[in-house]
Amino acid sequence: MERRQQKTGEFSRRSVDYKAAGVDIDAGHEAVRRIRELARGTFTPGVLSDIGSFGGLFRPDLSGLTEPVLVSSADGVGTKLKVVFRTGQHDTIGGDLVNHCVNDILVQGAIPLFFLDYLASGRLSQEVIADVVRGMATACTDNGCALLGGETAEMPGFYADGEYDLAGFIVGLVDRSRLINGSGIRPGDHLIGLPSTGLHTNGYSLARHIIFDTLGLTPESRPGGLDGTVGDVLLRPHRSYLGLVGPVIFGTDVAGARLVKGLAHITGGGLTDNLPRVLPEGTAAEINRSSWTPPPVFGFLRDHGALSDAEAFRTFNMGIGMVVACAPEATEVLLSRFEQAGEANAVVIGSITKGASEVTYV
Amino acid sequence: MERRQQKTGEFSRRSVDYKAAGVDIDAGHEAVRRIRELARGTFTPGVLSDIGSFGGLFRPDLSGLTEPVLVSSADGVGTKLKVVFRTGQHDTIGGDLVNHCVNDILVQGAIPLFFLDYLASGRLSQEVIADVVRGMATACTDNGCALLGGETAEMPGFYADGEYDLAGFIVGLVDRSRLINGSGIRPGDHLIGLPSTGLHTNGYSLARHIIFDTLGLTPESRPGGLDGTVGDVLLRPHRSYLGLVGPVIFGTDVAGARLVKGLAHITGGGLTDNLPRVLPEGTAAEINRSSWTPPPVFGFLRDHGALSDAEAFRTFNMGIGMVVACAPEATEVLLSRFEQAGEANAVVIGSITKGASEVTYV
Repeated sequence: MERRQQKTGEFSRRSVDYKAAGVDIDAGHEAVRRIRELARGTFTPGVLSDIGSFGGLFRPDLSGLTEPVLVSSADGVGTKLKVVFRTGQHDTIGGDLVNHCVNDILVQGAIPLFFLDYLASGRLSQEVIADVVRGMATACTDNGCALLGGETAEMPGFYADGEYDLAGFIVGLVDRSRLINGSGIRPGDHLIGLPSTGLHTNGYSLARHIIFDTLGLTPESRPGGLDGTVGDVLLRPHRSYLGLVGPVIFGTDVAGARLVKGLAHITGGGLTDNLPRVLPEGTAAEINRSSWTPPPVFGFLRDHGALSDAEAFRTFNMGIGMVVACAPEATEVLLSRFEQAGEANAVVIGSITKGASEVTYV
Repeated sequence: MERRQQKTGEFSRRSVDYKAAGVDIDAGHEAVRRIRELARGTFTPGVLSDIGSFGGLFRPDLSGLTEPVLVSSADGVGTKLKVVFRTGQHDTIGGDLVNHCVNDILVQGAIPLFFLDYLASGRLSQEVIADVVRGMATACTDNGCALLGGETAEMPGFYADGEYDLAGFIVGLVDRSRLINGSGIRPGDHLIGLPSTGLHTNGYSLARHIIFDTLGLTPESRPGGLDGTVGDVLLRPHRSYLGLVGPVIFGTDVAGARLVKGLAHITGGGLTDNLPRVLPEGTAAEINRSSWTPPPVFGFLRDHGALSDAEAFRTFNMGIGMVVACAPEATEVLLSRFEQAGEANAVVIGSITKGASEVTYV
């Protein structure tokens, strides 16, 4: 059916009041047009793009699934945005958000279907909106996930000029029999750590406090102990682990046991708070801190923030963005698969012990 | 499986940094506990609440569906929140958001499965968080929709103290053969208007400008021409049309033709911008403004804002929150079904003509 407007997914714009009240209708329509164009490039075969504009339509491929389960997550990017505002680099934060969401459902075994965003601002240039959306669209394409819709809200008097907030919502699919929930984890199992690229999207309130308030640095500063400028190091993108973990997530050994028993996405709360989310009752985790070398930013923050290890490991990911729990027999297979997929620095960072869900560091 | 923490849906809390940087971990954990409790009350049979904490798990009932289509939408509540902040009444805005989302996917024939929220603030009392989430939970229950997860983000220095932003994400389900897209709409068809309760969640930048800036009123003011205090009138909740439209949405006449040909949710842009979203090529809509009586707030805003009718009808819903397009033969059936469902004021507000997707008012 031909439609008056190009109808692609669900993209709307709130507050179509007029300029007297601080909202620009025509600029809004132009922004929606650009967003639609970017989103269209992410469309996978499941998107029913020929119909619909109020809601985004997605027809999931359910073939081979006996009991389809939808896995969804809502996330933001926190105060990493403040670093974006200071540097004026708006093209990576969208990828941070998408990858965070992808990882959050990956840990339960779900492969992403589609993503929607909420972008709220006071007044924002179309160039900035386009940069943010382009970042999301690129990451959606990289993850095989459709950018199905979103809301761009212009809320005068709500956000400072040039500032915005960004939230994402993802839906993925997994067969119930293939859900990953850590229930098979046993004492003696290994914990494989997958390297992070940096802070990802957590710990920025503290990191900014240390770097900007305490040390008085600027995004352009290049202090000793950091492997780049403050801006570059702080903006390093949140990595998606779908490309590494996806190919092995449903793999089994010769006896039919699953290679991957549990997955933890290391976000706010660090290893300390996130590992227990997949530990069955009666188990705990012991982490060997010397088994990997965190990127320099973590030591920098710990030293200049005078943080204890306990504080650092409960605030930052400390160089490990995802943890894979597996039987010891599966470790070598998984490490070699990760290496084949391009990640040579995956490493056993600890093991499962008996205990009460706590994480101890040795 | 027993888990260390009560795991119900996906509720996380961002920025678990510590108090020095402005984020309170313990208060955060308490807020998450309360949110989980409220959400648990909304759980429908599809929620797999025994497992998972990173993502929310939902097993849709696909029985009877030949080609299941997921319909999703992202929304905010705009600057209606500024009225909430001025009045200190935080218990209805969550319902505004949920109902807005429910209506947005209802217009394509989708029945809601689950909802997730994003609640971002600078610093917020647990009482306010609980009020907001309780509003969402109540509305979710009313709509038979699970509050499956969400993100509560504490972002110091981002929002003014006591202020917050709120976004919602909804996923619904419909069989592809039952999608509503307006494609069957023909000249001569009727447009039935379903009454709104007030501004719903759109036009608040302009409404606040007129009421607070131009007229200098306060939430407690009770000016002539309004049917209540400014605060009460402006906070009237966004209505869900699921209870009215849901029971007839898949209905057919004796010849098998669908009773409901198209649905438009009247949000930002009013009848003027939203009706064209369901009009097939070659058709237009003619609205008879005298066929219904808008609630007093609309005349009040038009008069005191010195708005033209064109401006008013493109900014506010003007008393019509949803429009149902149907064949003339279906009109009486639908009106009587709406009346049986408790809405005696549904009325034919116009009809379809030949044209180029425009909306004209007579």
